[in-house]
Amino acid sequence: MKKALVLLNMGGPNSLDEVSLFLKNMFSDKHILPIPNRLVRSLVAWIITKRRTPIAQENYRQLGGKSPLVSHSNHLRDALQERLGDEWIVTLAMRYTPPFAHEAIEELQTATISHLYLLPMYPHHSTTTTDSSVEDFLMYMSMAHWDVTTTIMGHYYAFQSYNEAIVTSILENIEHKEIATTSLIFSAHGLPQSVIDKGDLYEKHIEAHVEILKKMLREKGVVFADVTLAYQSKVGPMKWLEPSLESALEKQKEYKKALIYPIAFTVDNSETEFELSIEYAHKAKELGYDSYRVVPALNAHPMFVDALTKMVQNA
Amino acid sequence: MKKALVLLNMGGPNSLDEVSLFLKNMFSDKHILPIPNRLVRSLVAWIITKRRTPIAQENYRQLGGKSPLVSHSNHLRDALQERLGDEWIVTLAMRYTPPFAHEAIEELQTATISHLYLLPMYPHHSTTTTDSSVEDFLMYMSMAHWDVTTTIMGHYYAFQSYNEAIVTSILENIEHKEIATTSLIFSAHGLPQSVIDKGDLYEKHIEAHVEILKKMLREKGVVFADVTLAYQSKVGPMKWLEPSLESALEKQKEYKKALIYPIAFTVDNSETEFELSIEYAHKAKELGYDSYRVVPALNAHPMFVDALTKMVQNA
Repeated sequence: MKKALVLLNMGGPNSLDEVSLFLKNMFSDKHILPIPNRLVRSLVAWIITKRRTPIAQENYRQLGGKSPLVSHSNHLRDALQERLGDEWIVTLAMRYTPPFAHEAIEELQTATISHLYLLPMYPHHSTTTTDSSVEDFLMYMSMAHWDVTTTIMGHYYAFQSYNEAIVTSILENIEHKEIATTSLIFSAHGLPQSVIDKGDLYEKHIEAHVEILKKMLREKGVVFADVTLAYQSKVGPMKWLEPSLESALEKQKEYKKALIYPIAFTVDNSETEFELSIEYAHKAKELGYDSYRVVPALNAHPMFVDALTKMVQNA
Repeated sequence: MKKALVLLNMGGPNSLDEVSLFLKNMFSDKHILPIPNRLVRSLVAWIITKRRTPIAQENYRQLGGKSPLVSHSNHLRDALQERLGDEWIVTLAMRYTPPFAHEAIEELQTATISHLYLLPMYPHHSTTTTDSSVEDFLMYMSMAHWDVTTTIMGHYYAFQSYNEAIVTSILENIEHKEIATTSLIFSAHGLPQSVIDKGDLYEKHIEAHVEILKKMLREKGVVFADVTLAYQSKVGPMKWLEPSLESALEKQKEYKKALIYPIAFTVDNSETEFELSIEYAHKAKELGYDSYRVVPALNAHPMFVDALTKMVQNA
């Protein structure tokens, strides 16, 4: 009897051909596009997908023809498998692209599993991410008539070892002598304000997380020129969480040096490697920044692997 | 930080007025009435509820005007609360009658819960019971934006201490000298064959469970005149699981003495206290049985409380 650990994430196109599948599945998700009628939602998803696919394909082309998310997740899975050992099976389930939940379930059903752990790769809780991934996985478990004691890991932004990994990674990505003159911006993926108004915990968790990290930096005597929170990735005309990363960069431009930490992500994806590292880098240059750097997500960082191992073993 | 344990069950009318609510909620459940379109399902549920309410009310009237399920569940909850102590909050969530999942969630949200355990009162897995209750609870957690690490306990028909409680309870309900001349019938709530054909695990689990209990009785040197499995509660014209309890009683009538164990239930309800103890008792009399007795469900039996405590602490 083995234990199983499944890492849940949104997924990302594994090739340019998968871009439209990714968009279609994402906009068919009732947590992303909250249209109650499934047929209407499908139609709207189809229209959005049609319009966005060529632009998104062009962006993924600049990343080498695919999202980095799945391969980073594979590395993390391998590192966790090695750390947890033979008593465990570690696998992935993505929400919008392969490997899908039903594939993970088929794989795990061939073994004898005594306890299943579902670990969302989202440290902050949101209906649009955590709940969407967990509900999808449990629905496929039910459809596959697979019944095993299952632990769904909640948010973990306050988990001490996880935050030690983040602080270490920030310090690994900046020269000590540059800290005092650099503005550190925690950049979180944004959400429509309407989602937050319905009670979603995301903004609360992000804000609490930034406070924890600020305190840890202070206690280590690490003093940046400024530390702020901003939200990236806004699309559409609706009001999204604020301040935007664009306005934060504008406001902080006196410092001339920015270090961006992608606080909502644990593995790199098109939002970190295309938006932050290419698009916002361009804006920073236009705003006159001398230096603009993005800390990579933790991916398979040994301290992150340690933190997740501890978290799973204590759950 | 406390741990929370929620006992999940179908519920039952707490008064004659709640009979139609119970039926309406039950037949509106897509796991019970698998009609994909929600409006059509609601209409059919309304028709069934209209027709069945007066008959069901008459049955509940014979049980003192309500189902015994919720009060037995309350006693079990109290016993578990006492056993688990102050570190835990134990509560109930019913699928079709109060107390509903959203009420349990509201109660638990006022405390600080570090880990939530969902324990279906169904020892065998079925989409119609386990999945229905678990999905309902998780949906309300998501709607309440309540995020906490959550363990969903799977089936537990093979759990050693649970089966020791069952065997002890059987032996507590029969005189030793009557065992050799009595037919023991494990009676399980039936399901439409079509549900099983779609892959539901219920029949497999029931059959495996009966084999385990037979083996335990044999190893204790307890030899009934016969030990069999039958299914009760069939409604409608469709094919249900077989053999029916009625046909089993007919086939076993040469023994003249029957002891019925309600294997699918952990707490008594209208199926045990009305169907088994009144309706089938009447049939047994007609068939010429000298003795027909029903073992109560485990309810708050100390060995059951022990077993559940162990199960939760090991999960």
